[in-house]
Amino acid sequence: MKAFRELSTVEMQEQLTVLMAEYEQFVAKGLKLNMSRGKPSPQQLDLSMPLLDTVTSETTAETLKEGTADDLRNYGGLVGLPEARKLMAGIMDVDAEDTIVCGNASLNVMYDMISQAFSHGIAGQTAWAKLTEPVKFLCPVPGYDRHFALTERFGIEMIPVPLAADGPDMDMVERHVNTDSSIKGIWCVPKYSNPTGTTYSDATVRRFAALSPAAKDFRIYWDNAYAVHDFDQPGEALLSLKAACAQAGTENLWYMFASTSKITFAGAGISALAASPDNLAEIRGRLSFQTIGPDKLNQLRHVLFLNGMGGVRAHMQKHASIVAPKFETVLRALDDGLTGLDIGEWTRPKGGYFISFIGLPNTAKRVVDLAKDAGMMLTDAGATYPYGNDPQDSNIRLAPTYPLVEELEDASKLFVLCVKIASLEILLA
Amino acid sequence: MKAFRELSTVEMQEQLTVLMAEYEQFVAKGLKLNMSRGKPSPQQLDLSMPLLDTVTSETTAETLKEGTADDLRNYGGLVGLPEARKLMAGIMDVDAEDTIVCGNASLNVMYDMISQAFSHGIAGQTAWAKLTEPVKFLCPVPGYDRHFALTERFGIEMIPVPLAADGPDMDMVERHVNTDSSIKGIWCVPKYSNPTGTTYSDATVRRFAALSPAAKDFRIYWDNAYAVHDFDQPGEALLSLKAACAQAGTENLWYMFASTSKITFAGAGISALAASPDNLAEIRGRLSFQTIGPDKLNQLRHVLFLNGMGGVRAHMQKHASIVAPKFETVLRALDDGLTGLDIGEWTRPKGGYFISFIGLPNTAKRVVDLAKDAGMMLTDAGATYPYGNDPQDSNIRLAPTYPLVEELEDASKLFVLCVKIASLEILLA
Repeated sequence: MKAFRELSTVEMQEQLTVLMAEYEQFVAKGLKLNMSRGKPSPQQLDLSMPLLDTVTSETTAETLKEGTADDLRNYGGLVGLPEARKLMAGIMDVDAEDTIVCGNASLNVMYDMISQAFSHGIAGQTAWAKLTEPVKFLCPVPGYDRHFALTERFGIEMIPVPLAADGPDMDMVERHVNTDSSIKGIWCVPKYSNPTGTTYSDATVRRFAALSPAAKDFRIYWDNAYAVHDFDQPGEALLSLKAACAQAGTENLWYMFASTSKITFAGAGISALAASPDNLAEIRGRLSFQTIGPDKLNQLRHVLFLNGMGGVRAHMQKHASIVAPKFETVLRALDDGLTGLDIGEWTRPKGGYFISFIGLPNTAKRVVDLAKDAGMMLTDAGATYPYGNDPQDSNIRLAPTYPLVEELEDASKLFVLCVKIASLEILLA
Repeated sequence: MKAFRELSTVEMQEQLTVLMAEYEQFVAKGLKLNMSRGKPSPQQLDLSMPLLDTVTSETTAETLKEGTADDLRNYGGLVGLPEARKLMAGIMDVDAEDTIVCGNASLNVMYDMISQAFSHGIAGQTAWAKLTEPVKFLCPVPGYDRHFALTERFGIEMIPVPLAADGPDMDMVERHVNTDSSIKGIWCVPKYSNPTGTTYSDATVRRFAALSPAAKDFRIYWDNAYAVHDFDQPGEALLSLKAACAQAGTENLWYMFASTSKITFAGAGISALAASPDNLAEIRGRLSFQTIGPDKLNQLRHVLFLNGMGGVRAHMQKHASIVAPKFETVLRALDDGLTGLDIGEWTRPKGGYFISFIGLPNTAKRVVDLAKDAGMMLTDAGATYPYGNDPQDSNIRLAPTYPLVEELEDASKLFVLCVKIASLEILLA
C-alpha cells in the first residue's frame, strides 16, 4: 500500500470520502463496543470459580487454625498469612519475608505508600507535606493513568520520561534522580508495561539499581502488575530488581507491588507489597495504626486455589489461551489495515493487557471521538500521559481483553477506519 | 463486708498476708489466661461458618451478575454492592444511599478519614498538614485505644472528656467545640462504648446534633462498632444521630463507621461508613484515586448469609447466648469478691465487648502487673486514655468474650485478688 502522505490532495480527498461512507455504515450499525478498559473478560473470571469452593464450612479446624492465636477467621496477622506471603513472593520474585499481603487492591497499597510519605515521610526524611519545595516524580510515558492520577492528587509534579523498547530513557532518569533532591520517585510497570507491553531489559534494571539519588527518600515504585501474565511460556524475563539492588548496595531503593486482580478475580483478589527490611519495618509501623489485619480467609482461598508457582503458571496459561487470540485479532486488523500507510505504529506485546498505538501527531483525540460516535469506547486520548496531556496527541491505548473475539473483529476494523480518517484529515489540513 | 479503708493498719497487714498467700497459690498453678483483647471467641466465629458456603462455583450467573458491567467478580462498584449498602445501612440506622461499603476493617476506614483530612482537608478547609496551629480532638475517656493511637500518629492533640452514664460531658464538649476552631473532631463509640458499655442518651445525641462548631471542618466521628451487639432484645436504643442532625440543620456534622467484624468474622468481615451527601461526595472523590472497588464477593457472602436486619438480629442473639454468660461470670466474681470493700466500681453493660473497672487511684498498673505475674494478661493500664495516660491510674478494661467460661472463673477470681492486694498496698502506703 502507498503511504498516505505520498497521495495527492485529490487522492486523499477521494479516499476520505470513501472512508467516511464506510464509517457511516458503522455508525448505522449502532454498535456497542468497548476497548477502553484493562478488565479480565467473564471467560477469564470463570477460570477461577473453583477458588470459591476452597474455603467452606467443611474446611478443617486445622486449616483454619481454629482457636489458636492465628485463627484465620479472627483478628490479627498484620502482614498476611505466611502461605500467602510465600505465594505473592513467588509472583514478585522476592522472598516471603520481604512481603506484606494486603486487601483486594494494589492501587490502594500504592496510594497508602504515597499518602504515608506525604504525611510522615520516608526513612526519617521530612514529610512531603512539610516541604516548601515541590515534590517531583518521574513518569515513564506512555504509562498508567491511575499512577498519574494518584500522584497528581498529592500535588506531586510529574516529569514525563520517554519509554523505549528496553525501558525508560535511563540517561534522563539518572540525570534527574542523581542530581535533583526534589525527585522522590519513579513509577515503573517493568514487565508488559501498561500500555506498551514493554519489559525492561537487564541493563535497564541494573541501571535502576545503580542509581545514586540526590534525595534520601527517593524510591523506585515497581508495580509488577503483569509479572506472570505471559502469552507464551516462558514469557519475557525480568531481572530481579531486588537482586540487582542487593548487588549494587542499594537495597532500600525499591518498593514492589503486585496483585492477583488479573490472575483470579479483579474485584476479589489479594494484593501485596515487597520491600527491604528497613522499608518493611516502616510500612509495618504505619499498618499497625491502620488495621488489625487483612482478610486472611481470602488469602487462604488464593493459597489453596493457586497452589504455588507451578499452579500459578498453569493457571496463567489458561488465561493466555483466552487473551492471546484477542491480541492476535487486533494485531491482524492493524497489520492488514495500516501496514505501509505510514500513519501509525503499534506494539506487539508478549503478555499483559494492552497494545499501544502511536498515530500521526494531533490525531489521537480525533480517533477516540470518531470511535465514540460510532459506538466504540476507547481509553481517553492523553490518559497515558501525566495530567492527561499527550503533547503529540498521538498515543492510544487499546485494551483487547474484555470484548469477545467477534466484537474485536468489528472493533479493530472500526479503529483502523478511524485512524485512516483522522490521519487523512490531518494530512489535508 | 467491711470497707478496706475502715480496717486498722494491723488488720490491713493481716489481710494482705492472707491474700498474698492465696496469690502465690495462683502463681503456682502456672495459669495462662487472657482478658486483654476484644476478640470474638472461636465459638462465636463458628456461628458464621455457613457464610463460607453462600458464594461458590455453583452460585448462579444471575446472582454474580456475570458478564454485566456489575459482574461482582470484576473491577468496579466503588461504593459497594447495593445490597450490602442496604445491609450496612440497617445496622447503622441510616439509608443505603448514605453508605459506602468497604473492606474488612473499619479501623482502616477511620484511618483514611483522618489521613484525608490531614492531606487534603475537609469541605474546602485548609488541609491539617498545612495548619500552623495544632489540630485537636476531643476524646471521651475511658475510650478505645486504637482511636487514640491513630489520632496521635497524625500529631493531633487529644483532650480527654469524661464519659458519664449518659455519654460524654456535653457541657465540656460544647465549650470546646463551639469556641475553639482548633477542635476538629471527637471520637464517639455511642452504643455499648469501649470500655464502659455506655449508650449515649437521647439528650446527649441531641446535644451533639445541636453543636455549633467554631471549625467548619469539625466532625463527629461516630464509631458505632456495637450497634447490634445487644445481650437482650431489644437492646439499648441509640437515637439516630443522622435524624437528630437533620432536625438541627447540621447534616454535615457527622461521619459514621461500622463493621461486621464482631458479627461474622473479625478478620474477614465487611466495613462501612455513612455520611451526608456532601461528605460522601468528598469521600467518593478520594476513593476514586485509591481503589477500583471493594471485594464485592465478600459483600455478597454477607448479604446472603445475614439476610437483612431480621437475620442480623437473630444472628446476634446467638452471639449473646455465648457472650452474656461470660459477662455474668465476671460480674458475679466482682460482686462476690468486692462488694462493700469500697475499693472499686465496675460497669454492667447490656451489650458490647467490655467491662470497665475503676479502682482506687494508683492501683491499675499494679493490678495489671500482679495479674501478669500470675499468668493473666489484662489490657495495659492506661490504654483507655490518650497517650496511655490514665491520670488516676485507676481504670482497667476487662474483655470477657474470648476465654472459656471455666477460664473466666479463674480469671475473675485472680482479678479480684489482685485488686484487693493492690488496694491494701496503697491504703498502707
